[in-house]
Amino acid sequence: MILDLRSDTLTQPTQEMLEAMFTAKVGDDVFGEDPTVNALEQKLADLFGMEAGLFCPSGTMTNQIAIRLHTRIQSEIICHKYSHIYLYEGGGIMSNSHASVKLLDGEYGKISPGDIVDAINADDVHAPETTLVSLENTMNKGGGSIYTLEEIKPIKAICDQNGLKLHLDGARIFNALAVTGESPKEWGALFDTISICLSKGLGCPVGSVLLGTKEDIKRAKKVRKSFGGGMRQAGFLAAAGIYALDHQVERLKEDHARAKKIGEMLTDHPLVAEVFPVVTNIVIARLKGISPADMLQKLDASGIKAVRFGKDQIRFVTHLDFEENGLTEFEKRLKVIK
Amino acid sequence: MILDLRSDTLTQPTQEMLEAMFTAKVGDDVFGEDPTVNALEQKLADLFGMEAGLFCPSGTMTNQIAIRLHTRIQSEIICHKYSHIYLYEGGGIMSNSHASVKLLDGEYGKISPGDIVDAINADDVHAPETTLVSLENTMNKGGGSIYTLEEIKPIKAICDQNGLKLHLDGARIFNALAVTGESPKEWGALFDTISICLSKGLGCPVGSVLLGTKEDIKRAKKVRKSFGGGMRQAGFLAAAGIYALDHQVERLKEDHARAKKIGEMLTDHPLVAEVFPVVTNIVIARLKGISPADMLQKLDASGIKAVRFGKDQIRFVTHLDFEENGLTEFEKRLKVIK
Amino acid sequence: MILDLRSDTLTQPTQEMLEAMFTAKVGDDVFGEDPTVNALEQKLADLFGMEAGLFCPSGTMTNQIAIRLHTRIQSEIICHKYSHIYLYEGGGIMSNSHASVKLLDGEYGKISPGDIVDAINADDVHAPETTLVSLENTMNKGGGSIYTLEEIKPIKAICDQNGLKLHLDGARIFNALAVTGESPKEWGALFDTISICLSKGLGCPVGSVLLGTKEDIKRAKKVRKSFGGGMRQAGFLAAAGIYALDHQVERLKEDHARAKKIGEMLTDHPLVAEVFPVVTNIVIARLKGISPADMLQKLDASGIKAVRFGKDQIRFVTHLDFEENGLTEFEKRLKVIK
Amino acid sequence: MILDLRSDTLTQPTQEMLEAMFTAKVGDDVFGEDPTVNALEQKLADLFGMEAGLFCPSGTMTNQIAIRLHTRIQSEIICHKYSHIYLYEGGGIMSNSHASVKLLDGEYGKISPGDIVDAINADDVHAPETTLVSLENTMNKGGGSIYTLEEIKPIKAICDQNGLKLHLDGARIFNALAVTGESPKEWGALFDTISICLSKGLGCPVGSVLLGTKEDIKRAKKVRKSFGGGMRQAGFLAAAGIYALDHQVERLKEDHARAKKIGEMLTDHPLVAEVFPVVTNIVIARLKGISPADMLQKLDASGIKAVRFGKDQIRFVTHLDFEENGLTEFEKRLKVIK
Repeated sequence: MILDLRSDTLTQPTQEMLEAMFTAKVGDDVFGEDPTVNALEQKLADLFGMEAGLFCPSGTMTNQIAIRLHTRIQSEIICHKYSHIYLYEGGGIMSNSHASVKLLDGEYGKISPGDIVDAINADDVHAPETTLVSLENTMNKGGGSIYTLEEIKPIKAICDQNGLKLHLDGARIFNALAVTGESPKEWGALFDTISICLSKGLGCPVGSVLLGTKEDIKRAKKVRKSFGGGMRQAGFLAAAGIYALDHQVERLKEDHARAKKIGEMLTDHPLVAEVFPVVTNIVIARLKGISPADMLQKLDASGIKAVRFGKDQIRFVTHLDFEENGLTEFEKRLKVIK
Repeated sequence: MILDLRSDTLTQPTQEMLEAMFTAKVGDDVFGEDPTVNALEQKLADLFGMEAGLFCPSGTMTNQIAIRLHTRIQSEIICHKYSHIYLYEGGGIMSNSHASVKLLDGEYGKISPGDIVDAINADDVHAPETTLVSLENTMNKGGGSIYTLEEIKPIKAICDQNGLKLHLDGARIFNALAVTGESPKEWGALFDTISICLSKGLGCPVGSVLLGTKEDIKRAKKVRKSFGGGMRQAGFLAAAGIYALDHQVERLKEDHARAKKIGEMLTDHPLVAEVFPVVTNIVIARLKGISPADMLQKLDASGIKAVRFGKDQIRFVTHLDFEENGLTEFEKRLKVIK
Repeated sequence: MILDLRSDTLTQPTQEMLEAMFTAKVGDDVFGEDPTVNALEQKLADLFGMEAGLFCPSGTMTNQIAIRLHTRIQSEIICHKYSHIYLYEGGGIMSNSHASVKLLDGEYGKISPGDIVDAINADDVHAPETTLVSLENTMNKGGGSIYTLEEIKPIKAICDQNGLKLHLDGARIFNALAVTGESPKEWGALFDTISICLSKGLGCPVGSVLLGTKEDIKRAKKVRKSFGGGMRQAGFLAAAGIYALDHQVERLKEDHARAKKIGEMLTDHPLVAEVFPVVTNIVIARLKGISPADMLQKLDASGIKAVRFGKDQIRFVTHLDFEENGLTEFEKRLKVIK
Repeated sequence: MILDLRSDTLTQPTQEMLEAMFTAKVGDDVFGEDPTVNALEQKLADLFGMEAGLFCPSGTMTNQIAIRLHTRIQSEIICHKYSHIYLYEGGGIMSNSHASVKLLDGEYGKISPGDIVDAINADDVHAPETTLVSLENTMNKGGGSIYTLEEIKPIKAICDQNGLKLHLDGARIFNALAVTGESPKEWGALFDTISICLSKGLGCPVGSVLLGTKEDIKRAKKVRKSFGGGMRQAGFLAAAGIYALDHQVERLKEDHARAKKIGEMLTDHPLVAEVFPVVTNIVIARLKGISPADMLQKLDASGIKAVRFGKDQIRFVTHLDFEENGLTEFEKRLKVIK
């Protein structure tokens, strides 16, 4: 048994999810006629108390569309320097929206209200115009760290005072909510747009949903079309999303519990200098005395897969295909690595 | 029974295709580990004798990626003014690749070698640099018209003489091949990139494949990522493509035969001024004495769906959900429309 | 004496203009402190009854800034297929503003209200959003043809009804006004932005001015900065513009009279098939029995310079360095060319 | 007498420079026929031992063109986070070239070879492709700091090993050379392109020159045209550049000496926490116990002008309009500010 902890995107649909997909009613979503896609979009919009939703092939697309909506050429976006939108979307901020970035620091990938205020450009001909703040929750490269609602509220206030839009890369928002017990509607009330991934912790094969106002989602469809994200009988994929929302949200807590245990195991390991606080399903370990490449090779030889995550760090992610017996195995195998 | 002839994208997968989809082996295609996606890409590459393939959510994405590959900012593309890439991809040539367009005329959506030569910009500081010729076969807005290999060869020669790339929007290339009997490999030999749609005549729910050199496809993956077209367990969709290539290519001839009959019925209709020559599965009728909106309403009232296609034209498309009894019905219903 | 009729951009400043330039008071215009630049901007804004002006290094820049102001990514512009903004600005519509183009036909480079209405895209996900109509007056590639105010008014009405902006590439607007006697203020009332060239018929060495609302011009400064069009002590150039507006507008009529005579001479020439109607300072001749390259060589050998202007056409432009004795010479020299 | 030390762009041409401008031979540079522009371009290319030059309205344009040359959509540029190209060019990296930025830290605005190596993106589908390193010398926001040739050589080696281009924003390169005594040719040998400003320390009213290979400069002309930077009789401006290169380079040392003295005066001032090392003509003072706005107001009231330069810093720049008596005045006035 290989313990593949490289990503929570690696999961295979359960038999029940497959059944739901297989029997879905579908139509041509480019014509707006796929009932399952429409139902998924509505279901998530309702859950977060937002007006409308748009199903897309990936979270990169939902993020990139949101950025296009909230900027124009020569705008600037404020985000953490470890943001997915900046690091892992192929330079899309610049290539898709031609917007500039103001990259903030902050522990575990989180940015502070004070730094945001300082980062807003003055009304000066030399500087791009700040129009958007983008947050990521949970924060992947921050080790699955969480913003709470109370942390977001002052940021929202700054946005309102300065005429800025606020976007949430909520690829793993359900992981955050599973920890805080906060209500999706409270989150929906704070953001102009929210991007939610179905293919990470929720365990679906493909897809993300962008939430926003009706007007924004209408324009989002035009952007999606130009990116080539308009799909035809996409209901087969959307059905998995509906199933996951109904049956696979609660179980995220199990992933978190297992991640916490992995974090503890790693903390004591002689090749690990530090483990980021484990809050959700992501464990980042800073190594000592060994390079990420060498450590990954040792792990791989023991049947554990992880990924390099920065200069001297590696990342493990728990997910629905990693169960209790996997954890026992992990402990056993980790112990023999030196 | 509604006769929905708005598009060949409207088809539902057959039971056999569904079975193929939901028993497919899948993996995370962003990691390059989905065996079914890999198999589909290889199958089409082999069929056309090209080096590599890339599965994408739509034909718009495969076209837009190809355009990005063959241009840089301030390049210019030569294509017919009725091209899908210009008319129906949300302005993507300009918004995704920042390239200019030289739009040619030509009967039934086809452009001629002579006009292409004239359209190549001189090496002058005022003009964008021509780098790409893009053809569409079959040509949707030309009424499903066909370029033959013999028509392409002189165009390819012009491209070679002038250092231009040649792209094929082959969304319906299998419709063309079904008519001419030409070999895909001969087509593959003439183009730098070919985009092939699975969700049109081939009857799959979602997806297109871009074919090109290994180097181009490697770069194409970066572009796909930035558009948000990288999907995870996409093998469920790719499996439909493999099934269609194995079982649903030959039957395109039936669509063509039915389209031809529809064309004949329309030719004699009092509200029709002209029917474009019907070569494949598309029928375009120019109306007389009635607006497209009114004609579509009359048709709809009789249980026939078509789409407006230009100022005074409507379009019908045959497909695998439109069978022989549909044709009989069509004839009956059309007769009562006046 | 060489009769250089290639362009009205070729003129050298008169001694009086030079004097005005080199005694100008200047400052750093990036700081907004160049009094001569400010005076020129205000002078032209007042003349056309518009709120504000912006001095730029070229008419290409003023046009390109205006296009940026009136579009966003995935917008579409309606203009004549012979427009300078489309043909001669390096593909800037697409590379600077990522907007698409709807290119209209029309005799002598002019577009009609009816064609504009038909060219406005429907509110459909496949099509870019039409946001701007751009006119050129006088129309360079139309042979210096003119739109009158009466012709513009119905176009303006269409724009208002459809929420479109209306831009004027008025590179040679003073040539048009010299013919019609219309008032600049009436023109200013119809357009959202007007671009005016100082370095063509007005005879200045460098520069153009963009006119618009205060808000638009404020944003225009940001665009100008990003293009690199913010200059420091630009007052030396602006002073020429002020001088020209005061002293060199009236004389445009002489250019027109000379152009008309050249047109007549060419009409009778055996190598000329047709001369476009000569209305202002541009003469376009369609050749017969000789290629443009060969004709230009013959002319050059006789000390006459013109430019190729399309497949079988050449262009002559009169200007302030081409005077009455030049015309006499021209007639003499043309006669011996066969 | 106001001591205006806001920028070295504020200078007025000397009488001799004006004379040189006034008597320059000019032509239409869009046709390549301005002899003075051509001479300036050649003069600077020869001085730096590079193949060709291109005169542009500003250093922002020469930088932005260079970036366009060395990137394509989805490329990434490595530069210091205080770079002019990132901070002060209106977001042009992103809006003009759609490239991403990797922003490095480093004392006094300088980046190190080790950090550059770490900043080069791996060949991974998620990341933009690193294609360019851009350095600024002297480094404006680093307090006019200098890279020496010996510091550049290892950076050049990294670029060569990794297939990266190397651009120099040499807006104030002559200030650097005045300190180090290094030869321009040695600098020219290390960079793919160099941007040189005429309107800063050199004292010209307008203009910058981009140096590079003939092929790059040819393409640069196309980019310049699309930005609207092609000017007509630009020789009036270029003449100032030739004059400055012949007569106003040596005197930069005087600016440096005066800046050093200003630095010393500020170091002892009670409202100043720290003065950056003064190497050239720029003095940056970090304030204590007073905001930049308040300090600038106090200075202004005493007839001294400076600019805010970051959160708690102000900047003074010496230049040819600030002479020895200005320095004496400065000292006197500064003393009374508390």
